[in-house]
Amino acid sequence: MGTLTSERSSELQSIVWDSSSLEVAVMIEAELTKVVDDGRGTIRDIGLHSLNAGGKRVRPLLVWYSGLMFGAPSEALKRTAVAVELIHMASLIHDDVIDGSELRRNRPTAQKNWGCHRAVLGGDFFFAKAFGVLAETGLVKTLEIMAQAVQEMCRGEILQAADQFNTGVSLERYYERITKKTAVLLEASCKAGALVAGAPESEAETIGRFGLNLGLAFQITDDILDLCGDEAKMGKAKYADLTKGNITLPLALLLKEEGYRDWINTVIKEREFNRAQLERIESTLRESGAIERAFAIGAAHLEEARKILSGFADSSQRRFLSDLTYMLQARAN
Amino acid sequence: MGTLTSERSSELQSIVWDSSSLEVAVMIEAELTKVVDDGRGTIRDIGLHSLNAGGKRVRPLLVWYSGLMFGAPSEALKRTAVAVELIHMASLIHDDVIDGSELRRNRPTAQKNWGCHRAVLGGDFFFAKAFGVLAETGLVKTLEIMAQAVQEMCRGEILQAADQFNTGVSLERYYERITKKTAVLLEASCKAGALVAGAPESEAETIGRFGLNLGLAFQITDDILDLCGDEAKMGKAKYADLTKGNITLPLALLLKEEGYRDWINTVIKEREFNRAQLERIESTLRESGAIERAFAIGAAHLEEARKILSGFADSSQRRFLSDLTYMLQARAN
Repeated sequence: MGTLTSERSSELQSIVWDSSSLEVAVMIEAELTKVVDDGRGTIRDIGLHSLNAGGKRVRPLLVWYSGLMFGAPSEALKRTAVAVELIHMASLIHDDVIDGSELRRNRPTAQKNWGCHRAVLGGDFFFAKAFGVLAETGLVKTLEIMAQAVQEMCRGEILQAADQFNTGVSLERYYERITKKTAVLLEASCKAGALVAGAPESEAETIGRFGLNLGLAFQITDDILDLCGDEAKMGKAKYADLTKGNITLPLALLLKEEGYRDWINTVIKEREFNRAQLERIESTLRESGAIERAFAIGAAHLEEARKILSGFADSSQRRFLSDLTYMLQARAN
Repeated sequence: MGTLTSERSSELQSIVWDSSSLEVAVMIEAELTKVVDDGRGTIRDIGLHSLNAGGKRVRPLLVWYSGLMFGAPSEALKRTAVAVELIHMASLIHDDVIDGSELRRNRPTAQKNWGCHRAVLGGDFFFAKAFGVLAETGLVKTLEIMAQAVQEMCRGEILQAADQFNTGVSLERYYERITKKTAVLLEASCKAGALVAGAPESEAETIGRFGLNLGLAFQITDDILDLCGDEAKMGKAKYADLTKGNITLPLALLLKEEGYRDWINTVIKEREFNRAQLERIESTLRESGAIERAFAIGAAHLEEARKILSGFADSSQRRFLSDLTYMLQARAN
């Protein structure tokens, strides 16, 4: 198990369950730690703190296994996997600055520990580091894909802020937001991995669409859990999106229901979210069937992701990617 | 003059004085505007606002003319010039978030106009855009150089924050700070321009050292002007570094003087900077000769920059780069 703490290894095992993929996860973890630990001073502290906060490393695993669908393991594939997680890490550091969040995964955020100043610079540093690591692979195409993905992520976050407390927001707009905010980076991970391993452009596009659908399901699940998850398991406060005014899928669906529309509209507009009110919203979302329908939409994306995979020949890497969709479905239920 | 306002064209003419380099500046300005204007919504607004705030576009001009020292103008050289200015722009947007600055060049900053949230994301977007534009050139080496430069810039800003109000700071540490904060990006601009135009690595290193020395002189001049510049010309508040506790070169020199050390040490530690006190510091810096010595150090870097240029054959591009050093010297006096 290398240098992983038992806490980290059990966290990784929630997503990688066989010894072969666990080995991959441990290898990626070691690479990530090496890159971050290479620095000095505050930047290094922020990086290690962010890494040690954990996470499932879904994006590097997507890079790796999408790559193996088309070619052999390589140093370039490893570097690409590391770079994607650095991008994700940098974006989380900045997200916490933006939201003024003090906790992530039950630990203080970088901005809580080091202040907004160093958190902004720390995020910038790891974005730049990610592009530097990508450049080392010599593959310009993956750089383009990642640069594009980061731009979309920024647009997604800005969309989200613009739509806060807007109960008139359309489902199309919700989709645009979560695509940019989340799904595009998962799409880019799969695509980049495939290209680095030598996949033709069209096949890389296809495996990218797998990542996109996985990403949509991923965000929809997150959005549902914010409204009706088990707080103890989540490692963050429930109803955080709701109180910030983010109209997520279950709420958007409820807002389309004649019998609930006026009530939920008023509740959101009034912004008076005491605990009793929040729990009333949760039970209304459940009773109305909005939660169930949101789950079904998430499940449809996972189904689509599996359908895309079924177009490829069976292999251990295809099975890993397919298992990932079931893992996500299990998390949601 | 294309689409430039008269205000912008007169600003550019303070640095490009002959018709040929003015043409280059106008071309770069048009390219920059095209890239930024290509977006939509808030991001585009932030980008255009930042561009329209002006600036001398020193970095893209360094890319361009360093490139012409070794090869012909090209689309890749143009893209590299644009990318460097985008990096600079993104870093300024984040600097203003970090400092909570409300004004830059007499205009509201992005964070003042759009809030910290969108300013952080806007900066991230233009960093990513810059790397995307660089990737388009297909030259991995320049991506590595720029990714490295951004990392150094972040480290420089963090150093600066760490050393605030530290009157024991060494000259070496001051140099490390301004090298990273400022000079490294000017070095990278020259190096990247040269490499894109086909310069051998060793020549690119040499022209990079020209940029480094120019950058050091540039920052030393800025630091001096903060303490004794003409406020009307500067477009920003005087004594801003001083009141933030940034120990710049003139202060570091004064702190080495037996007769002034205790007084300036106490003044800085007490942090009571009323206008009378600030003006007393300024006149002490002048009387003691600290300002003059700081100027001389800056001038020595410009001299070194010109010495480096003199190793290359005479050409119109070498003359432009040389003129740039005299322009900077004139600004300082």
